[in-house]
Amino acid sequence: MNGIRPGQSAAKIDTPALVVDLDAMARNVATLAEYAQKQGLRLRPHAKTHKSAWIAAQQIAAGAVGVCVQKLSEAEVLADRGINDIFISNEVVDSAKLARVAALAQRCRLAIAVDSVLGVERLAAAVRAARSELGVFVEIDVGHGRCGARASEAGALAQRLVDAGLRFAGLQAYHGRAQHFRGSAERQGAIELAAACVREAQVAIASQGMGCPLVTGAGTGTFVNEAASGLWGELQAGSYVFMDRDYADNVPTAGAPVFEHALFVKSQVVSRADDRAVVDAGHKSHAIDSGLPSVWGRTDLEFGNGGDEHGILRRRDGAADLPALGEAVWLVPGHCDPTVNLHDTMIGIRGGLDRGIVERLIAVDARGCVT
Amino acid sequence: MNGIRPGQSAAKIDTPALVVDLDAMARNVATLAEYAQKQGLRLRPHAKTHKSAWIAAQQIAAGAVGVCVQKLSEAEVLADRGINDIFISNEVVDSAKLARVAALAQRCRLAIAVDSVLGVERLAAAVRAARSELGVFVEIDVGHGRCGARASEAGALAQRLVDAGLRFAGLQAYHGRAQHFRGSAERQGAIELAAACVREAQVAIASQGMGCPLVTGAGTGTFVNEAASGLWGELQAGSYVFMDRDYADNVPTAGAPVFEHALFVKSQVVSRADDRAVVDAGHKSHAIDSGLPSVWGRTDLEFGNGGDEHGILRRRDGAADLPALGEAVWLVPGHCDPTVNLHDTMIGIRGGLDRGIVERLIAVDARGCVT
Repeated sequence: MNGIRPGQSAAKIDTPALVVDLDAMARNVATLAEYAQKQGLRLRPHAKTHKSAWIAAQQIAAGAVGVCVQKLSEAEVLADRGINDIFISNEVVDSAKLARVAALAQRCRLAIAVDSVLGVERLAAAVRAARSELGVFVEIDVGHGRCGARASEAGALAQRLVDAGLRFAGLQAYHGRAQHFRGSAERQGAIELAAACVREAQVAIASQGMGCPLVTGAGTGTFVNEAASGLWGELQAGSYVFMDRDYADNVPTAGAPVFEHALFVKSQVVSRADDRAVVDAGHKSHAIDSGLPSVWGRTDLEFGNGGDEHGILRRRDGAADLPALGEAVWLVPGHCDPTVNLHDTMIGIRGGLDRGIVERLIAVDARGCVT
Repeated sequence: MNGIRPGQSAAKIDTPALVVDLDAMARNVATLAEYAQKQGLRLRPHAKTHKSAWIAAQQIAAGAVGVCVQKLSEAEVLADRGINDIFISNEVVDSAKLARVAALAQRCRLAIAVDSVLGVERLAAAVRAARSELGVFVEIDVGHGRCGARASEAGALAQRLVDAGLRFAGLQAYHGRAQHFRGSAERQGAIELAAACVREAQVAIASQGMGCPLVTGAGTGTFVNEAASGLWGELQAGSYVFMDRDYADNVPTAGAPVFEHALFVKSQVVSRADDRAVVDAGHKSHAIDSGLPSVWGRTDLEFGNGGDEHGILRRRDGAADLPALGEAVWLVPGHCDPTVNLHDTMIGIRGGLDRGIVERLIAVDARGCVT
């Protein structure tokens, strides 16, 4: 609905709108690519963050081996748009979906995770029927308490999938909750426990007389910890490309690469009282599952929840004036992934927020792809 | 992405998916229409809930005078699809947007809210330039603390807009927060205070020698209170059409119409451990701003936050078995409006959830329309 076009000033962007600072994003992409290269690790960024084939292509051009997605429908959309190395880092057990997985494996390099015997059997049946081939990672629970087999079961599951004619590609080992532990020591402690799970799983796999080709996992909050362990061979960070208020609230690990905020919601003050400025961006414009946005460049303002379509800005102690009626206010979303998923388009600008120029409209190709 | 077609069984719906029980929705639509008619009140349901021209048309066919929307872009989309009486119950102060408002007023019956002199002046300029006509409601803050002028300022603002050549249509008086106060006495108390604000505003308007043609407002949680006040002439409830877990948690007002859950997220267990069943629906499938979903028909299960793409079901005391790997689980979203806004399509079924038949696919026409 936003009628903005490349070449126009960012000041002309109708509000609310999701805006990407392309300069900052490019630096983030380069920073993690260089880090992975120096560490001798493969980088497979998670595309669930941006759901955009164009951004995935930027990451691959910078050295990523491909991308992760969380859902089959995301993989189908990205493959349709030219991304040809995709890992569905999640479980699929529905037979109709698995038939689509097997079909997709005929038109791109594909991998998927499993954590159950049922999942292995149904996947194997689908792949046999389609006569296709894909890599299969055994997901183990490394402390999150969500998906994943027990580490001790990894050997039996790996053996089972090989017996069923599938290719064992390694271990999926991702600790989602640990990404958001605020202290670096807490995050390090969580990944040490995750590493113990990986070692246990590797022993279980070796006891079947099998090797473990690769351990893949890690996110923006902990990848330096996985890298330091020497166990993980591939990093899956996704949010680094944009960063968000929640990740910025983490106390950084000493020496870790630094990423910049590259994703913003441009909003406008539509109502004003002595004690508040109400902007036109609520939680239909930015996701609040990881808390409310911060106000870019205005630490003296607090964003209060105004419901689906509003945010209520109030002064903190020491605040100067509230923004005026009609003024633009740039927000840093609490959580980038589900914020992007609310929008059909991201507006890419260069040259800063208020005075920047729109360079391109970036389609959120896999928006709403939850199946 | 969901390949389901009318005539197929609901059991075939790929997950996660947003599903509407059309039988329950039709009863909800009829129940509120009958209530409004008996009370002698106009009904203008809020289309921000469903963002669907087809559902808006059902509401109008049942007696609604038109619909409310919260954003100009929603109004444009619904007008394009044949809805011809729309009230933008929100402030617009951007001149480029106001030019679109004035243009839209040429192709449907339109009204809008204002709460500032700047808003009046810019709206008047846009309407003059387009030579169009629309109704203008003065929004007053009735206790929410978000948008709205002070009640005491309503007279001056009404006079100002008439002086600027606009048509004063009445007062927009909506208390959003009060909808979700759990106790009926709390809700009644909040609307009594809101009614005092309305009376104060009416006095201020009368002191300018003007009449107040209509007071519009009220939501699903409080409309019986606004109706009982004798002040409001038009009700704007929206969520009643679907209901959600949050509204169902309200202690009902004695004698108030009862609405049924009509909106569900169908999910599937994709990972299973002894202590948990992990479903494939997280907060990219349902909004969690008003809390997590409940599990339909399974009060013995608790839905835990599993992040963007997962929910973690655990037993409550006295629970029977957890659902099995591959089993379908139907969720009642915490908040219907932002949940609908995550999906491009709602799947309308009749005949119950598991055994129902798909009757129609309902486009979420104004999905993502936040500008």
